Amino acid sequence: MRTRPLKVALLGCGVVGSQVVRLMTTHADDLAARIGAPLELAGVAVRRPDRVRDGIDPSLVTTDAEGLVTRGDIDVVVEVIGGVEPARTLIGRAFEHGAGVVTANKALLAQDGPALHAAAAEHGADLYYEAAVAGAIPLLRPLRESLAGDKVNRVLGIVNGTTNFILDRMESTGAGYGEALDEATALGYAEADPTADVEGFDAAAKAAILAGIAFHTRVRLDDVHREGIAEVTAADIASARRMGCTVKLLAICERAEDGRSVTARVHPAMIPLSHPLASVKGAYNAVFVEADSAGRLMFYGPGAGGAPTASAVLGDLVAVCRNKLGGGRGPGESAYSRLPVSPMGEVVTRYHISLDVVDKPGVLAQCAMVFADHGVSIDTVRQTGKDGEASLVVVTHRAPDAALSATVEALRGLDTVHDVASIMRVEGE
Amino acid sequence: MRTRPLKVALLGCGVVGSQVVRLMTTHADDLAARIGAPLELAGVAVRRPDRVRDGIDPSLVTTDAEGLVTRGDIDVVVEVIGGVEPARTLIGRAFEHGAGVVTANKALLAQDGPALHAAAAEHGADLYYEAAVAGAIPLLRPLRESLAGDKVNRVLGIVNGTTNFILDRMESTGAGYGEALDEATALGYAEADPTADVEGFDAAAKAAILAGIAFHTRVRLDDVHREGIAEVTAADIASARRMGCTVKLLAICERAEDGRSVTARVHPAMIPLSHPLASVKGAYNAVFVEADSAGRLMFYGPGAGGAPTASAVLGDLVAVCRNKLGGGRGPGESAYSRLPVSPMGEVVTRYHISLDVVDKPGVLAQCAMVFADHGVSIDTVRQTGKDGEASLVVVTHRAPDAALSATVEALRGLDTVHDVASIMRVEGE
Repeated sequence: MRTRPLKVALLGCGVVGSQVVRLMTTHADDLAARIGAPLELAGVAVRRPDRVRDGIDPSLVTTDAEGLVTRGDIDVVVEVIGGVEPARTLIGRAFEHGAGVVTANKALLAQDGPALHAAAAEHGADLYYEAAVAGAIPLLRPLRESLAGDKVNRVLGIVNGTTNFILDRMESTGAGYGEALDEATALGYAEADPTADVEGFDAAAKAAILAGIAFHTRVRLDDVHREGIAEVTAADIASARRMGCTVKLLAICERAEDGRSVTARVHPAMIPLSHPLASVKGAYNAVFVEADSAGRLMFYGPGAGGAPTASAVLGDLVAVCRNKLGGGRGPGESAYSRLPVSPMGEVVTRYHISLDVVDKPGVLAQCAMVFADHGVSIDTVRQTGKDGEASLVVVTHRAPDAALSATVEALRGLDTVHDVASIMRVEGE
Repeated sequence: MRTRPLKVALLGCGVVGSQVVRLMTTHADDLAARIGAPLELAGVAVRRPDRVRDGIDPSLVTTDAEGLVTRGDIDVVVEVIGGVEPARTLIGRAFEHGAGVVTANKALLAQDGPALHAAAAEHGADLYYEAAVAGAIPLLRPLRESLAGDKVNRVLGIVNGTTNFILDRMESTGAGYGEALDEATALGYAEADPTADVEGFDAAAKAAILAGIAFHTRVRLDDVHREGIAEVTAADIASARRMGCTVKLLAICERAEDGRSVTARVHPAMIPLSHPLASVKGAYNAVFVEADSAGRLMFYGPGAGGAPTASAVLGDLVAVCRNKLGGGRGPGESAYSRLPVSPMGEVVTRYHISLDVVDKPGVLAQCAMVFADHGVSIDTVRQTGKDGEASLVVVTHRAPDAALSATVEALRGLDTVHDVASIMRVEGE
């Protein structure tokens, strides 16, 4: 084994960063054996150096992140600050100074992945980011490497633990969205400003990264259709349950059937209780991958948290160090297929629609005609009525999302339809 | 991209090999883009060259496997013959001639993994074998790489599709073992001689490989405690169901609590229906991995079959080719921790025991005393009786397997115990 250590610079020492230090310390001997050389924590850049940090030599702590990554002797930079800046600039500077980079920064990768990959390639450096998607679950490495000889057609998963916790509580307690969100906040599953999670921004960033890797193309954050869970009601969940389904916030990346385009979207959807994703509870994540030859694979585990995320960071750190010692470089960006990303309207899916209608003969027929006029075939209709009001619950067959949206608009225009009480896509069949 | 192709020699062209050729042909452009150079099928060694092989240029087919791997221009040898010889010799010759090797050969790896790894290292060559365990499921790469910075404590999984199919049929139809085996044979899920599957040899080879990688040590096939499913009865499965469990053939690799030894075993066990492995049906495989920091991860997918196995082979082929082009080498054997493998008697587990006993007062107390004498604590006892015969079903708390075995022996010696009708371990809690 080489005795000269590989020097690691850590940017950020919060929930994840402190766990990275803990693992580097407690597993030092194992890491050295696995890498072939010891690791040395060469510096830790933080914003607030006065905070006490257990187990970190105070002389390593600095507020000068730029100085740390450019000092010239750093082998690997671990970036766990999050957010676009200053992370982007610091990662670029790290590459310029010959360091490999391990990051958990999904927002930055979803926004600037191609530029980061290009910078890494230019300087012959590694860029690894397993921790950016689905926490500790090995997902990007299997997609990038294990399935490198296959054709992935679909990635469908629960990639945000906060929203999964909220939907799970709504389902198990009958609570409304607001109440479940309050509980998630109180328990630390939701942040004080939960927007990034509940509005689907976090999941959309992950969907962009997953779609790019799975289909060997580029998918920008703006290409991902995004709907959050704030509009999901207790009635939606009860309705899902009646049809043997549950409601999950899903990230779905699909290759079109003709193979010439892809789609990426994040929205709440009903999935059958028999689907393996239906039993993913609490803050866990799980992702289905469907490939031509491998078939249906599922990856399941903790989607967030300091220790699980640090585990993924350390796995990447070991890989970058092994590459450094071996003189090689891990796989770079693979975006050769340059597939266009189709808009949401071209996604083919199913709808579950609840309508409040006038309770008189012929209304069902009138509504059914609207579906037919838009080329949308109905799978099932359930009609219930009382006191002159009736409710129609329609589940469609697969149709383009644009046709489904137009159907809903036309239904809203009928005199006999008082309200379109809820609309939700049905997935996972 | 480099235009000079990387030359691939294929050893074996059966169910898996023919799918490897299919994928290399149909995905040729994608593979070239992902690798950075085209692949060329340079030769296919088979035993029966007269068989028609779709899509393979007859001039590539040879019976001289040795000549193929030693001709000097081969970059990667894909070995899908199976069995120990001639595969072992051919792989050794491939390394000597500078080729990297991709193999799906679990029997050879479980028996001679260390020697193969040493030969690969000596010649600076790659040895990859994702397809050897759990078919298409990315499992070895996550263990070797994604979890390289973590401490794996347990691997628990369903790694043999044939036995899972049989147990699944016994559970869903109430059939006995023989009837379910016949069905599996008729449907092609079991081979004409099903010994390797039903007696647990196949799963034991996989357990040895998994334990070695997970714990960075060496576990020989002989170190793996092995029991097959031939003794599992319809009554066992009914009894499991009564206690909210199902019966699965599990491969279980564990690190002892003090971290100083490991165990590896394959046997049928009851697991709670609420456990994610309980819902793994038919010929699917699934593996749980428990790590200090990552927590509980699960990997699920098709465990066998030509196309899924070929998908795993191709992923490795791409990796070896990328390494060749980059001048590096993938991770070699990591067995530095040299942990002893403890015998089955030291495994700590739980037992489910059904006893046929005389129906008279005091028998339960007498049996309970036997458990207590051996230091085995009882979790639950269920007693049912009719016509002077009674049945006791005992579920124990966790205890060393040796203590549980001794308890069963002592119970057999009691006059009041007519028969120990079934014994099964309880796992997954």
